[in-house]
Amino acid sequence: MSFGSLHHADLPLLLPNAWDMASAIGFVEAGFPAVGTTSFGVATSAGHPDGDGSTRDDNLVLARRLRRLPVYVSVDIEDGYSDDPAEVAAYVAELGVDGVNLEDSAAARLVEPAGHATKLAAVKDRNPDVFLNARVDTYWFDEDATVEATVARARAFVEAGADGVFVPGLTDVDAIREIAAAVPAPLNLLVTPGLSLRELADLGVRRVSTGSLPHRAAVDAAVRVATAVRDGEPLPTATSYADAQAAVRRYP
Amino acid sequence: MSFGSLHHADLPLLLPNAWDMASAIGFVEAGFPAVGTTSFGVATSAGHPDGDGSTRDDNLVLARRLRRLPVYVSVDIEDGYSDDPAEVAAYVAELGVDGVNLEDSAAARLVEPAGHATKLAAVKDRNPDVFLNARVDTYWFDEDATVEATVARARAFVEAGADGVFVPGLTDVDAIREIAAAVPAPLNLLVTPGLSLRELADLGVRRVSTGSLPHRAAVDAAVRVATAVRDGEPLPTATSYADAQAAVRRYP
Repeated sequence: MSFGSLHHADLPLLLPNAWDMASAIGFVEAGFPAVGTTSFGVATSAGHPDGDGSTRDDNLVLARRLRRLPVYVSVDIEDGYSDDPAEVAAYVAELGVDGVNLEDSAAARLVEPAGHATKLAAVKDRNPDVFLNARVDTYWFDEDATVEATVARARAFVEAGADGVFVPGLTDVDAIREIAAAVPAPLNLLVTPGLSLRELADLGVRRVSTGSLPHRAAVDAAVRVATAVRDGEPLPTATSYADAQAAVRRYP
Repeated sequence: MSFGSLHHADLPLLLPNAWDMASAIGFVEAGFPAVGTTSFGVATSAGHPDGDGSTRDDNLVLARRLRRLPVYVSVDIEDGYSDDPAEVAAYVAELGVDGVNLEDSAAARLVEPAGHATKLAAVKDRNPDVFLNARVDTYWFDEDATVEATVARARAFVEAGADGVFVPGLTDVDAIREIAAAVPAPLNLLVTPGLSLRELADLGVRRVSTGSLPHRAAVDAAVRVATAVRDGEPLPTATSYADAQAAVRRYP
């Protein structure tokens, strides 16, 4: 089995996005066969906003740790942190993981697709066994947010070597169906409230990422423990210290 | 105002324990005037079990980040990572924070109290403005878990220079009252289910730490998002991406 083969099951591959080892071990213990990362979570864990390219070095540390877990690992590398295709390809080789996400935007604006395709081609050429997921940010940044523009970008990226296409922010069922049918590679969406994995599968979706939602829910839950004590509300329960310690010890 | 003065309010100082910047910013945004750290959270974030002394270098990175937040910061430094008092004192100086927790155990066993007192004295001598919280692990490791042994250790540590005493695992109300009365420094406990801050104050407690509970609740919440999608349950809600980004940007 390969990470790629998980994109061809009956239901879409559900990829939970971790930001550190504790969250990744939580997902592994819950039975997920693959774990992604969230640049939002990695960036804000270190005190940086998302999208500023701050995650480059932290990803290398995190990837080295995640590689020892018994799951496939895919890392969100933003735009690759460089305009030099060879540099991005070398960075992906250094990560040493099963997959990466590379986005076609920088500073919240779409980049020119031909240049991005060159970057994707360089990454694939140097890392043929890495599942290369090309993120198309048309809907995410509401710029050229049409089926036509999205499909044109996606096709160019698949032609350049991308193994999958990720369109965050895409939620319209007709647009999902059209894009899934027109793109010759597995389509990845974010978790979409109101659409089950079965319904997404029926629309042609092959992979569903949680994005930063688990991270945001986690921070909220941490704060809720402290405010519950402060405000005299019932104390939330959680996995015991002993069980959480035991889980970490299972992945030395 | 100083971090120390927060230990003399009407209610105990409630100290939420962070493990990274995202969690710390969450606590700051919720209005807490001081933030601690949890060695469990710092260790497991990096994939290590708690109590192995793995947090030494990660604490230095985390402390540098936490110092830019508009709150007092106290760091859990386990046993100081060294038997050399001068080395521990230098480490605390390097952290540059408002308080530290130093525990009188290593490898889950109590250490000889006289040697530990020497370590505390060295830390206080070199860092007179740092609130030095001496953790007494009699109840935590159920070793000499009596009022007498705990008070004897606590008094020796306060005499050596500790500004406060932390007794995790102490939950019996009579023992809490006796220890609070017998120790000449603010008593710190973990959050105790069934005892409100008011009730703990009436027992003489001056500080209440959340310990690793927020971290464990956070990991649980992250996993719950992913399993909810997998199992077709309602998607948990969370702070929006935009609001979470804005919060991080407030602490550049």
